[in-house]
Amino acid sequence: MKAELINPFIDSTMNVLSTMAQVKPVPGKPYLKQDNRSWGVVTGIIGLAGAEMVGNMMVSFEEKCILHIVSQMLMEKYTEVNDEVIDAVGEITNMITGGVKKGLLDHGLKFDLAIPVMIKGENVELTQLTKAPIIVVPFDTEQGKFVVEANLAPRAG
Amino acid sequence: MKAELINPFIDSTMNVLSTMAQVKPVPGKPYLKQDNRSWGVVTGIIGLAGAEMVGNMMVSFEEKCILHIVSQMLMEKYTEVNDEVIDAVGEITNMITGGVKKGLLDHGLKFDLAIPVMIKGENVELTQLTKAPIIVVPFDTEQGKFVVEANLAPRAG
Repeated sequence: MKAELINPFIDSTMNVLSTMAQVKPVPGKPYLKQDNRSWGVVTGIIGLAGAEMVGNMMVSFEEKCILHIVSQMLMEKYTEVNDEVIDAVGEITNMITGGVKKGLLDHGLKFDLAIPVMIKGENVELTQLTKAPIIVVPFDTEQGKFVVEANLAPRAG
Repeated sequence: MKAELINPFIDSTMNVLSTMAQVKPVPGKPYLKQDNRSWGVVTGIIGLAGAEMVGNMMVSFEEKCILHIVSQMLMEKYTEVNDEVIDAVGEITNMITGGVKKGLLDHGLKFDLAIPVMIKGENVELTQLTKAPIIVVPFDTEQGKFVVEANLAPRAG
């Protein structure tokens, strides 16, 4: 994935969380994913699929971070990663990639979004069938950390 | 998902496994997924995304079943679910949905495929952000069982 293509992922993440949860995440330096594990306690995964481009995006949260975000979003205090929190992670995943889709259209890249799949559990063994690099953007908030992991590349063959 | 749309999933699964691994799976009666857990020890997930249709397909294997299939595919004996077996699950996921894509074009349904994500682990908590029913097709082979789980529905909104 070209480095400039990561910016729509960063912009959309900051936009969604500030709009939906009044949380202002601070992005850190992107790096390449080196392991095959889920990063946080709960992870949203969504397929990106077009005639020419293909990939996935994941967003994965520390527990205190997602509990704070969902408490803000739903205006109710959440103290455990229950079904409502898991569904909210799916909604956040959808909204972030919705923004990314619009942002990447400006670069002439067109794709549709699949249905978010949410995985609960840290260090779940999770591998993608791609040789394309997976870029990880770490984010910090006042209430903990999360990451966005993205890979998007021309469709092979 | 309309019941007749499940047939291309069944046909493609049988075709891929008999062609690639000389395994002839016998499909059982489809049912609706009731839990939010991975079925087998290793699961391939792929997003299906078009302008009008959206969904995911998963294929999940018992250990002895996938070890037999991959041993047949790669003509080498596999005795544990290692990285090569996990990648083979991704390839199988890709090939099955490739066939499904062609089969559903005959029904006028068009979508592209995302990148397979493979999850290792039984009973991993795994939820989809959809109200569409998820149809499970159980398959039996001479060397154990696997399931194909599919949801594909008109894109909402």
